[in-house]
Amino acid sequence: MTFRNKFPPLMTLLGGASIATVAAVILRKKYRKSNTRKTVEDEMKNGKLVVESIGKIESIYRLCVGTPRQGLLAPHARGRLRLSNAHAVEGLSKYSHVWIVFVFHLNTPHKGVKIAPPALGGRKVGVLATRSPHRFNPIGITLARLDKIIIAENNSVSLELSGLDLVDGTPVLDIKPYVAAYDSPIDEVARVPSWVSGGLATKRPVKLSDTARESIRRILKEGKTKFYGRSFGESDDEGYEHLVACICEVLAMDVRSTYQTKKVREGKSQAERSKRVQTKVSEDSPVCTQQIDNLLVHFSVQPASSVVRPTSEGSGAEDTVFVTKIEQL
Amino acid sequence: MTFRNKFPPLMTLLGGASIATVAAVILRKKYRKSNTRKTVEDEMKNGKLVVESIGKIESIYRLCVGTPRQGLLAPHARGRLRLSNAHAVEGLSKYSHVWIVFVFHLNTPHKGVKIAPPALGGRKVGVLATRSPHRFNPIGITLARLDKIIIAENNSVSLELSGLDLVDGTPVLDIKPYVAAYDSPIDEVARVPSWVSGGLATKRPVKLSDTARESIRRILKEGKTKFYGRSFGESDDEGYEHLVACICEVLAMDVRSTYQTKKVREGKSQAERSKRVQTKVSEDSPVCTQQIDNLLVHFSVQPASSVVRPTSEGSGAEDTVFVTKIEQL
Repeated sequence: MTFRNKFPPLMTLLGGASIATVAAVILRKKYRKSNTRKTVEDEMKNGKLVVESIGKIESIYRLCVGTPRQGLLAPHARGRLRLSNAHAVEGLSKYSHVWIVFVFHLNTPHKGVKIAPPALGGRKVGVLATRSPHRFNPIGITLARLDKIIIAENNSVSLELSGLDLVDGTPVLDIKPYVAAYDSPIDEVARVPSWVSGGLATKRPVKLSDTARESIRRILKEGKTKFYGRSFGESDDEGYEHLVACICEVLAMDVRSTYQTKKVREGKSQAERSKRVQTKVSEDSPVCTQQIDNLLVHFSVQPASSVVRPTSEGSGAEDTVFVTKIEQL
Repeated sequence: MTFRNKFPPLMTLLGGASIATVAAVILRKKYRKSNTRKTVEDEMKNGKLVVESIGKIESIYRLCVGTPRQGLLAPHARGRLRLSNAHAVEGLSKYSHVWIVFVFHLNTPHKGVKIAPPALGGRKVGVLATRSPHRFNPIGITLARLDKIIIAENNSVSLELSGLDLVDGTPVLDIKPYVAAYDSPIDEVARVPSWVSGGLATKRPVKLSDTARESIRRILKEGKTKFYGRSFGESDDEGYEHLVACICEVLAMDVRSTYQTKKVREGKSQAERSKRVQTKVSEDSPVCTQQIDNLLVHFSVQPASSVVRPTSEGSGAEDTVFVTKIEQL
């Protein structure tokens, strides 16, 4: 289509070659302008960018409190991401691990420049020197194992993940395949502060009572769990093994603030938001609860009385954890 | 302030204890409502979140084309991030590496679900199965070495980075310290597709002419580079060594699309946006250019004629690179 075809009444009305030339110039300018492709930066206003969730996480965790600080620390933790378009993950099954870029959706907005990580026992550091969820932009990255990709008939897709540290309902912004050559420093050991390495080296022993073990077996047999056992397509024995491993991993390195740790030791820790548990607290047998999958895990924490830990109140505290009872939610 | 003080005219007008009781109930309800802290999710509209740049990258790269696909592949590449508040990075110097969460600001907005990575020679895969910059949300993550933290008198701070793959001007959303126990799969080798591992194994030999080497020495001696040599606080010899290493790293694993690779082999590759270079192209000596720091690197690419590479047109092609000339920009 030429501009002559586009503007025949104008051409007829004004006539002449000079008008045609002017129109051609205008159209050319307009074309050139629309042809200058806008970049993301052009669309950002004052450095602000609008991002949009591409899917939500389903997971065994429902509360921030008690969720491991990173997925690799609880490799038996399971979750799933459903996406609407299977074409977007074509070829992803060739990778074993993925990065998940997500929103810390349960955060309350926070603009502070310093933060008190649990392992520092009240001392503050710069927020950018921590992996705290409270950040200038509430965006997190976490590495997860990609176990399986299930494509439904309607072209929607489910990524089955393990070693996941995300709370149920977490909005996801991006998935990126993990490539060690890009994501892991070669030929050198990455340096971290002692309060981080120290916390990682300390795992609390976790002991399950016979009653707790029996309850897990029964609940699995009834198919009442979502991510373990027959409902997940594995045998009851496999489910039992994986679920017990997960409970131990989660409780062995539980990260709580100094305040939360104190509450745990006093047996006053809140568990499932939708089902706040009435626990009878006594000096002798404090009881805390933690929700994992469809289970409510009752446990008590016995502080290691002989150890003095001034700067490790939360993370990696050398307490002993006793799982006393397991309830189905 | 009690509600009585807040509503004296109403109290006077209506009077009586019953009205006071009603008002107290209303106020209590209102207080309780305002006391329920809003979460990030409450503030998100239809899964949309507004994020904001906390600083911009300064770097040796000014164009997307020719910038390495990941920083670890060019460990001698340098850059810097300036932030306004030094308190936010207090404690960060204890870490050797940081994640940078950034915006692909030079992208044109893209909503496709599939993409053709250079190494696949035209074949498409799902965008979420690649590290392509063209994503649903234009957010990238990259790992960089944290060499130094410089705090200015006005409390602003500069993070000196190496092994950086970001273009000058990249807006940064977050910095997170790298912790191997969180970010690197333990006890197992991460699996990637052969087109990724194959591309990583192939590095093009890079040869510098004597003229090019002399020019680098001269430009360094004049202090005309920004990130290498005396302007960066290192000796001319150190600067020379690091800059030559950087040029070789960048050109050895240059990632270009099939289209760009064809252009390079024909010696028609665009260089510095602000200074498009007029090159005389002949069949015998094609000349391409690439900007690194304040240098304009002239090079030619000699295809390895005996090797048939149907699926490796771009990434890791077994061409040989000849750096013929270095100009100061």
